[in-house]
Amino acid sequence: MKVAVLSQRRFDASKMQKINLFETERFFLDVYCLEPGQSQKAHAHAGSDKIYAVLDGAIIARVDGEERELRAGDAVLAPAGSEHGIENRSSARAAVLVFMAPKP
Amino acid sequence: MKVAVLSQRRFDASKMQKINLFETERFFLDVYCLEPGQSQKAHAHAGSDKIYAVLDGAIIARVDGEERELRAGDAVLAPAGSEHGIENRSSARAAVLVFMAPKP
Repeated sequence: MKVAVLSQRRFDASKMQKINLFETERFFLDVYCLEPGQSQKAHAHAGSDKIYAVLDGAIIARVDGEERELRAGDAVLAPAGSEHGIENRSSARAAVLVFMAPKP
Repeated sequence: MKVAVLSQRRFDASKMQKINLFETERFFLDVYCLEPGQSQKAHAHAGSDKIYAVLDGAIIARVDGEERELRAGDAVLAPAGSEHGIENRSSARAAVLVFMAPKP
């Protein structure tokens, strides 16, 4: 049985870190770890939907030009084709659970 | 932008409750709410993978006959074809985040 722990964190001052928890041919589940100022630049996937769910701290999520601040416990859907990204504009570290299917 | 809150809960003494947070043609994200003694009976999906991630409390997860106790912050993969289920054998309420793709 494959078990993973959501509390895993790895931060790096040079860029946002991605920790993979599970990956199958159908999806992946990662934890993204963002130091203040770090981001995942806006991008799009033609055929995959994504969810960002904030575990720690706060991020700005952007989906198709709309921005929202999300705090721990908030989640947002980035549907296939939408331009989406996240940014940590706070002064504290942030961690985000990222689910995507199908795997790009 | 579709935003949902992971802290949503709804318990019912008669059976486990499922709260849908996001649903697309590619996946769903639910919160399952289990009173002590409640369960999702073991079952299988031929072509979909699932993740259970415990938000509150503790559950017993069963995948292909193997059982493990999972506590808040633990997650388990139930690959396509595996027989899987969860049970709250504790004396406290439990809440579990459930990702599944593709939607069955």
